[in-house]
Amino acid sequence: MPEQTPHQTPHIVIIGCGFGGLEAAKAFKGKAVRVSLIDRTNHHLFQPLLYQVATAGLAAPLISAPIRHLFRSQDNVTTLLGEVRSIDAMNKRLEFVQPSSGVPHALAFDHLIVAAGASHSYFGNDAWEAHAPGLKTLQDAFDIRRKILMAFEAAEAQDDTAQREALLTFVVIGAGPTGVEMAGTLAEIARHTLPGEFRRINPASAKVILVEGGARVLQAMPLDLSEKALKQLVKLGVDVRLNAKVTQIDAQGIQVDTLPTPTDLEAKTASSPQTVSARSYQIHSKTIIWAAGVAASALGKQLASSTGCELDRAGRVKVLPDLSLPQVPSISVIGDMASLMRDVDGKSVPVPGVSPAAKQMGRCAAANILRRIQGQSTLAFHYADYGNLATIGRNAAVVDLATPLGALRFSGKLAWLFWLFAHIYFLIGFRNRFVVLADWTNAYLSFSRNARVVAEAVSPESS
Amino acid sequence: MPEQTPHQTPHIVIIGCGFGGLEAAKAFKGKAVRVSLIDRTNHHLFQPLLYQVATAGLAAPLISAPIRHLFRSQDNVTTLLGEVRSIDAMNKRLEFVQPSSGVPHALAFDHLIVAAGASHSYFGNDAWEAHAPGLKTLQDAFDIRRKILMAFEAAEAQDDTAQREALLTFVVIGAGPTGVEMAGTLAEIARHTLPGEFRRINPASAKVILVEGGARVLQAMPLDLSEKALKQLVKLGVDVRLNAKVTQIDAQGIQVDTLPTPTDLEAKTASSPQTVSARSYQIHSKTIIWAAGVAASALGKQLASSTGCELDRAGRVKVLPDLSLPQVPSISVIGDMASLMRDVDGKSVPVPGVSPAAKQMGRCAAANILRRIQGQSTLAFHYADYGNLATIGRNAAVVDLATPLGALRFSGKLAWLFWLFAHIYFLIGFRNRFVVLADWTNAYLSFSRNARVVAEAVSPESS
Repeated sequence: MPEQTPHQTPHIVIIGCGFGGLEAAKAFKGKAVRVSLIDRTNHHLFQPLLYQVATAGLAAPLISAPIRHLFRSQDNVTTLLGEVRSIDAMNKRLEFVQPSSGVPHALAFDHLIVAAGASHSYFGNDAWEAHAPGLKTLQDAFDIRRKILMAFEAAEAQDDTAQREALLTFVVIGAGPTGVEMAGTLAEIARHTLPGEFRRINPASAKVILVEGGARVLQAMPLDLSEKALKQLVKLGVDVRLNAKVTQIDAQGIQVDTLPTPTDLEAKTASSPQTVSARSYQIHSKTIIWAAGVAASALGKQLASSTGCELDRAGRVKVLPDLSLPQVPSISVIGDMASLMRDVDGKSVPVPGVSPAAKQMGRCAAANILRRIQGQSTLAFHYADYGNLATIGRNAAVVDLATPLGALRFSGKLAWLFWLFAHIYFLIGFRNRFVVLADWTNAYLSFSRNARVVAEAVSPESS
Repeated sequence: MPEQTPHQTPHIVIIGCGFGGLEAAKAFKGKAVRVSLIDRTNHHLFQPLLYQVATAGLAAPLISAPIRHLFRSQDNVTTLLGEVRSIDAMNKRLEFVQPSSGVPHALAFDHLIVAAGASHSYFGNDAWEAHAPGLKTLQDAFDIRRKILMAFEAAEAQDDTAQREALLTFVVIGAGPTGVEMAGTLAEIARHTLPGEFRRINPASAKVILVEGGARVLQAMPLDLSEKALKQLVKLGVDVRLNAKVTQIDAQGIQVDTLPTPTDLEAKTASSPQTVSARSYQIHSKTIIWAAGVAASALGKQLASSTGCELDRAGRVKVLPDLSLPQVPSISVIGDMASLMRDVDGKSVPVPGVSPAAKQMGRCAAANILRRIQGQSTLAFHYADYGNLATIGRNAAVVDLATPLGALRFSGKLAWLFWLFAHIYFLIGFRNRFVVLADWTNAYLSFSRNARVVAEAVSPESS
């Protein structure tokens, strides 16, 4: 594609079509601007349900929609398939590569919204990725699905007891929302979906271990909901290890250091210091899923070196209250890539990396660009926090709603139904909502999972 | 897995869980036998709808079911994931490899049913496969889906006119049922699904070319239905080239020799011989789909060298009327791997490689094994031919039914509805039928396709 020739109509480029980029592009509907929306894939992904694809509950097309289809009737949006390689803030241009052809293209912009999201971070231990995949893309979900289903298949064929046990041990690292969902669903698959289908192993004997470095699960939730979630996990059969720090991951399993707990530390004053040193042990497992660390897209570093903007510890770009970069008003950063503090009851806390925040930022960044074009001053982003919810498994979820009358917290079956309908409501397009609901009603009644299909049985990671 | 210890209960091994293997295994339900069912994948595939997965109309899980789930309540069936490497007919044992572990296993059998199906054949031109993938497995369907969708994406980004034209030229080789379905659906995607979603190209200008070596499409059909199918293809916008032999396939496209037609040959007498020599020309295309040749599984050769049985031209095993191998009563071959002639109105014709034949053979082979176990003589296979049907696209199909009162032939919208309901009826499991029907009703009304998702945008084959 040639560089666009200069044009009177302002040209806005949006990088990434997650929740933030999608909302931003939609906000330009009917406005006198040209929008180019670049994404690495051909689809918008409803990430909150990605774990259902990874655990064979939903087919991939049910939670993804082709980007160009979403914008077919918004004439001022051009959809481009491409991976952005560099951003030249000074000259207002970027370079991207069309993945199916490998050909680089240059693109000039008047305004840029960077919404490239985040990917998993292994805290500097990049070698762990080969043994413990994370869950961000559809390809990740297919890889994890294959790993899980093939572990049961290999266990059925395995005679060595220790090997079989390692194949039937599933480790999830990190007890945030994704880790809790994955562990709960894995336990459900082992206890309810697969029993009766194998002749040599008992799938219900599989161990699901959730390893968390902190002192509780779902740390973004209030303490009482964390405790309720923990109880629901244990009830589903998940072995939860808190204060457990992963120090090594390889083809055999993981190495864990148990941190001293406050109780241990109290005991320390009464006994010798040695008793509270970290205990180290190994878990043999062939299926390890990484849900612990997230880092902003590497485009953050690009922006830092080209504009001098600052990054936080997770690689997120520190933005001004109007979401633009300091000294670079033509570039805004939103969603999981943006680092912004807000005031809650007098305390300064970060805007969380959740989809409602990304959507609100998308709308705010678009509105500020339109204000700039019209010579108006920009408005500061205000995060409307409607609360937080997390699912654990069948009939198990926790909900923390922010209502005008104060917080409303509930858990268990009612929370699970609330979670279910909220997610189906926010799914894009009627068909998907309808089919997902039909799928889940059937799965709920029969304990079955409808996407237990692996295209190629051979797992490249298998030993 | 260790070799099974000798056992009083007869052990039947079935290789392959397509239509033939599935029916054979089901036929042993409640019988005093042990059945081991080995397949290379974890799922049974409803192959008649695989082209819908390849053309982004259906999600893969809708047309596939986990094999162990299908047999969960048939206690005498053990499902094994594995690829059979060798069959030792003399010692009644085989070796298979568990794909996720790579470990070889030996398995002894008392009776063996070989139902390993067929894959595409390039008539000795194996180098063509890299440029013209065939459609047999889910992985094939994903690869073809990626190729089709990425061609439109690359065309949108391409400035060179010739390159863009090659990206917007889709060639299907072979006008059997699969080739006709693929070509018709591709035309529908280009004309009805994608228009309005691109800003630089017009998807409706894409060319879909169906290349057939023979003189008509759907050669298994009566002549009048072939002609009706051809008319419907042309109406959908497919450029059909009959009597066109492919002589070369590479990254640039295909080379075609046009054979002299009967009309040409008549003309020959009137003019000089040179005018009827084959004309050779090139079609530039980046997306070529192979639907021309099929060859039986390589296990046929295995059997030939180990039992001395004969193969036909397509590598199929010539079986006795009771489906067993000459001189090897313990081994039967069924479905697309079996070569068997039958008598039709005094003429000897082969039993066709279609799913009803495979299913009937599966039941017959199982019944004959049970008769052998009970010391009874075996029965000859009788093919009940209910007719033939093929779909071309929206509202377009041809049906040739064999009824007790004679042949019933029809085409067009009624045939398409008949095809639709017949296929949904035969889909395994209520959920799938229901969801497929819902998906198709929606697709029919809106011209949309619901699985336009490519997990990884990068196509390995792309230039």
